[in-house]
Amino acid sequence: MFNPAIEALNAPPVSTVLDWKASYDGRHGDMIDMSQAVPGYPAHPDMLNALAAAAATADNARYGRVEGDDNLRAAYAAHLSTLYAADIAADHTHITSGCNQAFVAAALAVAGRGESILMMRPCYFNHESSLGMLGISVGYVDCHDEHGLLPSCADISAAITPEVRAVALVSPNNPAGTIYPPDLLAEILALCKARGIWLILDETYRDFLPLAAGAPHNLFASDGWQDHLIQLYSFSKSYCMPGHRLGAVTSGAEMIFQLSKIIDNIQICAPRAPQQAITPMLDQLASWRDANRARIAARATVFSEVISQLEGWTLISTGAYFGYVRHPFDKMGSREVAQRMARDAGVLTIPGAFFGDGQDQYLRFAFANASREVIGHLANRLGLLT
Amino acid sequence: MFNPAIEALNAPPVSTVLDWKASYDGRHGDMIDMSQAVPGYPAHPDMLNALAAAAATADNARYGRVEGDDNLRAAYAAHLSTLYAADIAADHTHITSGCNQAFVAAALAVAGRGESILMMRPCYFNHESSLGMLGISVGYVDCHDEHGLLPSCADISAAITPEVRAVALVSPNNPAGTIYPPDLLAEILALCKARGIWLILDETYRDFLPLAAGAPHNLFASDGWQDHLIQLYSFSKSYCMPGHRLGAVTSGAEMIFQLSKIIDNIQICAPRAPQQAITPMLDQLASWRDANRARIAARATVFSEVISQLEGWTLISTGAYFGYVRHPFDKMGSREVAQRMARDAGVLTIPGAFFGDGQDQYLRFAFANASREVIGHLANRLGLLT
Repeated sequence: MFNPAIEALNAPPVSTVLDWKASYDGRHGDMIDMSQAVPGYPAHPDMLNALAAAAATADNARYGRVEGDDNLRAAYAAHLSTLYAADIAADHTHITSGCNQAFVAAALAVAGRGESILMMRPCYFNHESSLGMLGISVGYVDCHDEHGLLPSCADISAAITPEVRAVALVSPNNPAGTIYPPDLLAEILALCKARGIWLILDETYRDFLPLAAGAPHNLFASDGWQDHLIQLYSFSKSYCMPGHRLGAVTSGAEMIFQLSKIIDNIQICAPRAPQQAITPMLDQLASWRDANRARIAARATVFSEVISQLEGWTLISTGAYFGYVRHPFDKMGSREVAQRMARDAGVLTIPGAFFGDGQDQYLRFAFANASREVIGHLANRLGLLT
Repeated sequence: MFNPAIEALNAPPVSTVLDWKASYDGRHGDMIDMSQAVPGYPAHPDMLNALAAAAATADNARYGRVEGDDNLRAAYAAHLSTLYAADIAADHTHITSGCNQAFVAAALAVAGRGESILMMRPCYFNHESSLGMLGISVGYVDCHDEHGLLPSCADISAAITPEVRAVALVSPNNPAGTIYPPDLLAEILALCKARGIWLILDETYRDFLPLAAGAPHNLFASDGWQDHLIQLYSFSKSYCMPGHRLGAVTSGAEMIFQLSKIIDNIQICAPRAPQQAITPMLDQLASWRDANRARIAARATVFSEVISQLEGWTLISTGAYFGYVRHPFDKMGSREVAQRMARDAGVLTIPGAFFGDGQDQYLRFAFANASREVIGHLANRLGLLT
């Protein structure tokens, strides 16, 4: 009675993990939730006020343009142009209802029946399941510990079969936190151009890159990026508003047109009130964003220290937002380890198995969710596990 | 460089029509916009206040459960149980970000690539393009003028080939306004059960059915509906909040589970603030909904009178929200007629051609968008066309 491609999917991974909360009796204090990636601090009061004001108007209760509201697209294009030192126009942007939706639309826009998209493994689970859902084949490029979970361009090149229509990347990476160096990204985009395919680059976590690092990459300044790059972004993490569902795609105008046909079917338009509320905040909350960037970087430092002091636990990769950690239980799958951690230690993480085959020795910690003080308690909590 | 299934889609139809607005110079007064289905009155002040209050909280800016917030699901299930005199539970419901998304998810849940869904023609364009986008084949059952644009159950039965996984219907119909009688719906659901397939029933416009008609149908009281019925709804039209993007699916718990995997990929969760705002309104705005129902019914009457007085124009079907009208220009396609109407008469409608093959003699009027006074001006405006 069901589409076999949908029956074959796992239950929503985050829901599965959140349901484990009930197994913890609180004996060691509050649950430390490092599962779903959600900032552990609230939205800025100005943002909440703007959301309320925008939701109060009858105008914002009406449909908007499929591609997004004109003022947000213009403001976001200007923001991008500054951030990447490039010339990005409003019609290079498409507002979506969250970044998962942006990925689904991008995948549909490039890959039809029997075609394939390459993913770096460990994979963000919703990317993998979105392709499965759409009947798009997935090719995998394994990322190795010894390269800090970065793929090699040669491995990607070798994996590009004639069916492959795009290479999909997440940087800073989900689940590994790994920050892709600008040179590697440039090399991968050049490879995609040479092979006549697309690079889908999800930069949901870009506002948590170290400030000193400068622009995340220079791809938008390269020739012909419009025909080979589909860049994705989420307003959820940077502005602490995942519940309002707002994301964006940046690509060439022809790709934006193709995406508009998909988004019209899936969504008609992204929610209007959050679009209106966020528009002035791109500028107004710049220093608040940078303060959070510093705050999350400090959490990364504490998290690294905590894991390094724990016997048997190894931090495989980190950078921004996430840490990817090898657990010490060689004979136990990651799902069982994560369930025990939830129940016995009150620590919620995502099992490596959710990020693809071969990941059973790992766990993803969304350390950005928790304060430094809470992260400090991790050592004691994880020490309770046997 | 693009997925051929996406390249083959038309530009978003409503965007195309709205762009014709610019061709009208205002010489006959304000544009009469009967194109996109949007109530011509604003949301209730209590609704706007509730939306603003919900958007003001940091809690509602967080992610929610994939299936929807518990309190909304419970309130919606109770609302449905009363409306349909049936026993519908919260876990029979899934909240979505609008009803188009609900349709996409329902289609994906039942039909894989190479499988097919039956549509009644004229078709709602976004349903047809959603299936094209997903690589799902479409089978058509033509609805005829002489049956008030209702399909015959025998025609549906004859069209159910082994590849067909579902029959998709819209009642009250988009584009024709036609109200499917409860007996016909019961017969179609029985047919779907007998053939082991699903009925996808989009009831976006159900709150505009004549009050005297009673429940829209009795399907939810039939045995085993959970395994054969997927019912869709939109909060957009009834509460004048399309810009907030909120819809719902009602089906069996197993279907809801399959849908949750799809919605997790496409959306993660529907926007939270509108979910919280709408919850108490299902009860609180009951009499306001009924007043609008009466208001729209009065518009239907005026619209029918206006069209009946116009030489050469024929009202083929109406009922709730829309009228489907044969235009008098035998040698002109519906797209050209609609463009001329926009430019020369300042009347915006959707050309029949957008609703499928064989529809070029028709236009869809969303009369619910306009007041009775404005509808009264239609006769003069349409009389201007030659």
